[in-house]
Amino acid sequence: MEEEEANNENDLSNIKENVLIKKLTKSFKVSNKSSTLGIGDDAAVLNFDNQEVVISKDMLVEGVHFDLSYMPLKHLGYKSIVVNVSDILAMNASPSQVLVSIAASNRFKLDAIEAIYDGIRAACSEYNLDLVGGDTTSSNKGLIISVTCLGSINKKKFVKRSGAKDGDILVVSGDLGGSYMGLQVLEREKSVFEVNPNSQPDLSEYTYCIQRQLKPEARKDIVKALDDMDILPTSMIDISDGLSTEINHLSSSSDLSIHIYEDKIPIAEETKKVCDEFGINPTVAALNGGEDYELLFTISKKNSKKIADNPLFRILGSCTKKKNDNCMITSIGQKINISSDGWDPFNK
Amino acid sequence: MEEEEANNENDLSNIKENVLIKKLTKSFKVSNKSSTLGIGDDAAVLNFDNQEVVISKDMLVEGVHFDLSYMPLKHLGYKSIVVNVSDILAMNASPSQVLVSIAASNRFKLDAIEAIYDGIRAACSEYNLDLVGGDTTSSNKGLIISVTCLGSINKKKFVKRSGAKDGDILVVSGDLGGSYMGLQVLEREKSVFEVNPNSQPDLSEYTYCIQRQLKPEARKDIVKALDDMDILPTSMIDISDGLSTEINHLSSSSDLSIHIYEDKIPIAEETKKVCDEFGINPTVAALNGGEDYELLFTISKKNSKKIADNPLFRILGSCTKKKNDNCMITSIGQKINISSDGWDPFNK
Repeated sequence: MEEEEANNENDLSNIKENVLIKKLTKSFKVSNKSSTLGIGDDAAVLNFDNQEVVISKDMLVEGVHFDLSYMPLKHLGYKSIVVNVSDILAMNASPSQVLVSIAASNRFKLDAIEAIYDGIRAACSEYNLDLVGGDTTSSNKGLIISVTCLGSINKKKFVKRSGAKDGDILVVSGDLGGSYMGLQVLEREKSVFEVNPNSQPDLSEYTYCIQRQLKPEARKDIVKALDDMDILPTSMIDISDGLSTEINHLSSSSDLSIHIYEDKIPIAEETKKVCDEFGINPTVAALNGGEDYELLFTISKKNSKKIADNPLFRILGSCTKKKNDNCMITSIGQKINISSDGWDPFNK
Repeated sequence: MEEEEANNENDLSNIKENVLIKKLTKSFKVSNKSSTLGIGDDAAVLNFDNQEVVISKDMLVEGVHFDLSYMPLKHLGYKSIVVNVSDILAMNASPSQVLVSIAASNRFKLDAIEAIYDGIRAACSEYNLDLVGGDTTSSNKGLIISVTCLGSINKKKFVKRSGAKDGDILVVSGDLGGSYMGLQVLEREKSVFEVNPNSQPDLSEYTYCIQRQLKPEARKDIVKALDDMDILPTSMIDISDGLSTEINHLSSSSDLSIHIYEDKIPIAEETKKVCDEFGINPTVAALNGGEDYELLFTISKKNSKKIADNPLFRILGSCTKKKNDNCMITSIGQKINISSDGWDPFNK
């Protein structure tokens, strides 16, 4: 009987939407000065003084963007915020508010939605964000999370994809390919588990790559470091779809070409080891993998000295005014075309 | 062969996401001064000078919020914008931008998504909105549309749910219950069609109610009319869930009670006729139906004369400081409690 009552309380269909939203959001505190009015009215009210407002929106769909057989719900909540924060940072802006809509089928109970909100709360705390709106509704199948993120920036300082100039230097933060290799490990373990549900895998040697996949971070520190060094990038994008795709976005928006050097691409030792085990070329993981959420940007040549020895950054290559000539110079001096479809290793 | 090619072009899985978004949004023009940068970068950039930014977000899920067996895709696109615009207007703000995310299963082809965007474009044109962001992705099942709407308002003029005062007058725009009765007609025709797919129903006598359900409008004219009359509501909400639920939202947010008069509730003659046919009490349709997207607001008593004879408005009742006493006085003088569950006609 007690169990039945607990089950009833855990059943989303027994909770009204406005009661549910209150329950889920009561522990969220609004702390940013720009948040005038948070959740609980028809709309949120914000004030950014005379700053530019920067806004991004992204939808994550179960079975398309995530697989709950290895993605814990708390991590999913965290990651859904991070991917949107990363878009705001890629404009050189400072993220400050999020709105979250969740649609969940009746296979999800209250505790599942609360776990997602635990992750959202952790991300809001990490990135100093206020949750100011959203809704939770039912779906016929699966879980869908839609996040809107807002931030602000002085109007002279927002950075588009289109500002790169001939001679500018291409720079990337962090290291690449780890998230993609983490996904390979998780997919393999899922297959093993499907064959033998009693398997107890030891994943400790894959910790770095799995963390890059399940709990990525957005590079707020990079935006701050650039500001501290008084460097305003000429163009910027975050790496969600793999280095080669993002290079193509920057070059086509800026109407020029970009060339990079294979031996400059930063790849962690942990990632290289996993690549070796899977027989995947680490350069392919970096170019085509995606979900690194590192920042890729161009700076004026005069600023290159400021970052040359900074461990946060790696100079990858530079921009030329020649059209449609994005390429990578390999370790042995070969020139490989980088198309918008990513780099095809079979044509190497 | 030609047909096969046409089919291939119409298949969403053959189109890259960034190409798809460009294709869908190329005919949208950005016209508001506050839209600094629209679709095509990591995020949109907006500038509202020193105005308050008002933001709402809502998700519509197939099978939960709409049924494609009678909701045309173009109307769905239009309505998905209208319901969000209505939330912005309910804050007394002026809507200016939308961001749209769509997730669609592989049963939807390019022409279906284009039809939704036709409706979005029509709504953007009607309400002078700029489409500044969003994405289109796949889902495992069904169609999900998530819309974020932004607007702005002078900081002294935004209206919350919580400002109603003892003695204030409760006012509603338009008429109620029509959308709910339109839904009843459409559900009935769907059942008939399932039994006899060759039926050719004549729905001309239901045009008003069906239009209220399939192509609702948000009351931008009401916000303007109030401003023209120099009336600032003390509290406001839009009617998405039925009059009784919205009355409960206003009264609980404002910490008072509201009483209304049954014979003051505005119900169109067309709606009454459909109610009669379905054996539904028109007052029930108005109180519990929902999706009217009319504005419900309170004004100071001193302003009541200004609107008393204006056909745009109807005075429904007033506010009292007594707690937990929301009620309706019926045509025969009975006092009926209005709970947050709506009005139960069986307890009348």
